[in-house]
Amino acid sequence: MTCIGVVDTTFARVNMGAVAIDEIKNLLPNATVKRITVPGIKNTVWGALRLIRDGCDAVIVLGWVGPTPVDKYSYLATSIGLMQLQIETGALILDVTVHEEEGGGDEKKLKEIALDRTRKHVWNLVEMLRGGLERYAGKGLRQGYPHAGEII
Amino acid sequence: MTCIGVVDTTFARVNMGAVAIDEIKNLLPNATVKRITVPGIKNTVWGALRLIRDGCDAVIVLGWVGPTPVDKYSYLATSIGLMQLQIETGALILDVTVHEEEGGGDEKKLKEIALDRTRKHVWNLVEMLRGGLERYAGKGLRQGYPHAGEII
Amino acid sequence: MTCIGVVDTTFARVNMGAVAIDEIKNLLPNATVKRITVPGIKNTVWGALRLIRDGCDAVIVLGWVGPTPVDKYSYLATSIGLMQLQIETGALILDVTVHEEEGGGDEKKLKEIALDRTRKHVWNLVEMLRGGLERYAGKGLRQGYPHAGEII
Amino acid sequence: MTCIGVVDTTFARVNMGAVAIDEIKNLLPNATVKRITVPGIKNTVWGALRLIRDGCDAVIVLGWVGPTPVDKYSYLATSIGLMQLQIETGALILDVTVHEEEGGGDEKKLKEIALDRTRKHVWNLVEMLRGGLERYAGKGLRQGYPHAGEII
Amino acid sequence: MTCIGVVDTTFARVNMGAVAIDEIKNLLPNATVKRITVPGIKNTVWGALRLIRDGCDAVIVLGWVGPTPVDKYSYLATSIGLMQLQIETGALILDVTVHEEEGGGDEKKLKEIALDRTRKHVWNLVEMLRGGLERYAGKGLRQGYPHAGEII
Repeated sequence: MTCIGVVDTTFARVNMGAVAIDEIKNLLPNATVKRITVPGIKNTVWGALRLIRDGCDAVIVLGWVGPTPVDKYSYLATSIGLMQLQIETGALILDVTVHEEEGGGDEKKLKEIALDRTRKHVWNLVEMLRGGLERYAGKGLRQGYPHAGEII
Repeated sequence: MTCIGVVDTTFARVNMGAVAIDEIKNLLPNATVKRITVPGIKNTVWGALRLIRDGCDAVIVLGWVGPTPVDKYSYLATSIGLMQLQIETGALILDVTVHEEEGGGDEKKLKEIALDRTRKHVWNLVEMLRGGLERYAGKGLRQGYPHAGEII
Repeated sequence: MTCIGVVDTTFARVNMGAVAIDEIKNLLPNATVKRITVPGIKNTVWGALRLIRDGCDAVIVLGWVGPTPVDKYSYLATSIGLMQLQIETGALILDVTVHEEEGGGDEKKLKEIALDRTRKHVWNLVEMLRGGLERYAGKGLRQGYPHAGEII
Repeated sequence: MTCIGVVDTTFARVNMGAVAIDEIKNLLPNATVKRITVPGIKNTVWGALRLIRDGCDAVIVLGWVGPTPVDKYSYLATSIGLMQLQIETGALILDVTVHEEEGGGDEKKLKEIALDRTRKHVWNLVEMLRGGLERYAGKGLRQGYPHAGEII
Repeated sequence: MTCIGVVDTTFARVNMGAVAIDEIKNLLPNATVKRITVPGIKNTVWGALRLIRDGCDAVIVLGWVGPTPVDKYSYLATSIGLMQLQIETGALILDVTVHEEEGGGDEKKLKEIALDRTRKHVWNLVEMLRGGLERYAGKGLRQGYPHAGEII
């Protein structure tokens, strides 16, 4: 039975973890889901590591990043860490990252981006576990925004 | 018995290590606390490594970062190093980083940010060791600033 | 028999994976080709790892990168991850990366860049597997653009 | 008996290695000192690695960095490398880095910064080997500049 | 007998590999030289790894970097990769990197920089293999430009 890990943060302003779990249970009712909440994005590497050691072979990491240059460095360091973790463990980690400036100051819009991105990346994960995303290759899929589509 | 490590620096302009130790003893009276002080943020990776080898399974890293682009690169390199260290050892490392420009030139404000951030991250650590932060997921918690709150 | 892996994304707006496979079969008819499609560039490290574990000793990674600074950090993190993966496994990974701003707003041009770059990097891979690129050293070869040529 | 390594460069415009060795011998007369000079900052990782393999458990790395953005990337890559090296080996590495623009065009001033920073970091190293820097925690110590002091 | 590896690229607009080999044979006639040419700078990590596995204990990496911010990220990622490779293998890697904007639009000048930098770094490598660069420490040596000299 598949074990899927969910890592989210208290820094996020939307309960992305709860949304991800709902969507996983919706699409993959028999999966075991384990969740860990950490303070901020830089701690998600440790969270994902712990869930992998607890038996999860795929992890959704739900990050929320502030708007400053220092925040973006934290994003960069985390991204590097999550790649290294995948190389070390072989586990699949999909990261769903919301950047606070994406809302353009509109909190409602920011929340919608977070929800859409979370749900679509859960769908990505489930497709990868089931049969693969090959049929969507080059289709310009987007998460948090409408799909860009293939260039014809 | 839990061993919590504290790494701080001589570069910092606030004795964040002492504050962290007080707060740990306050919230977790039975924990063993080990401290190491290093010159600057780039040396905290070595400090954390030594405390982990000395038996700590969780480490608070208290960094203070100057305002220049080179200082931010030092922050980035350190962040990458601390993630790698967590991947290698499995230990939990919470980093509490104060950036000198956060005070906007006001030293008092900068000190308050440092104290608030330190205490709140000790609280994070203790919650993670006790039962987890799941109930605060997506609540927009902030350290050094007032909480941003959840988007309703 | 050589096994060549192809990793591409659903984020890309051109089916670079299909083009790469055609070109590999054209130039190296006896090679085994394995393909995996992942959501975006940051997931290509996991994709390449899986193909290497499945027996491929060379992998073409086809990435598509958005135009924002955050997108470029994702590119940077991925580039670091792919190098680390090569160091860990010894496998050859050629990455073919298209940056959305390269088209200058012209989708047709962007697609041409993607196709040209993909085909030329497949050629690079095949040359490296056959006899080496030594005779083209310093010739100013470009992928996605006309060759710059050697400075005489 | 403690073995302290010293890595410096031919790129530097001040013989920081000689100054460091003098200061180590002054403060720690019984230490064994081993020195290696490399071309530039990016080569210091290899230099430190070699000295660690030669038996040094602490290394001073004396770097000199040019003023351009590319030079700063070299600084960043080196900083990441030195952290990784510490994680792999457990050795303490203190890096003393001079940035050419720090002099503001005044070579004399630049040399003074280099000398002060070198000597103060040797003192840091010696204190760490002896009893620790805990009593200086949060004191706002600076190397190459006057101490900033604690915020009262 | 010493084996020196040479990695160069087809992206470069000057045959730096041939120049390096000439210079190695000139200065170190008994050395074995192995060369591998890869497409671009990001592939040099793999190239150096292969030469190290083929028995080389020192490698010259000859990179050519474009002028855009993305090109500089490729440079950064490569620099990090080459450091990691040295940590993993203990081999000495000297990288000789030419940045296209260094010529200021003058191809002749760019070529001269590439040639001078290549030859001087071969000399560095040979000196390191023979007796060390200690006597040149702090002398402000430059490659591709006139030496800056020591600050007196």
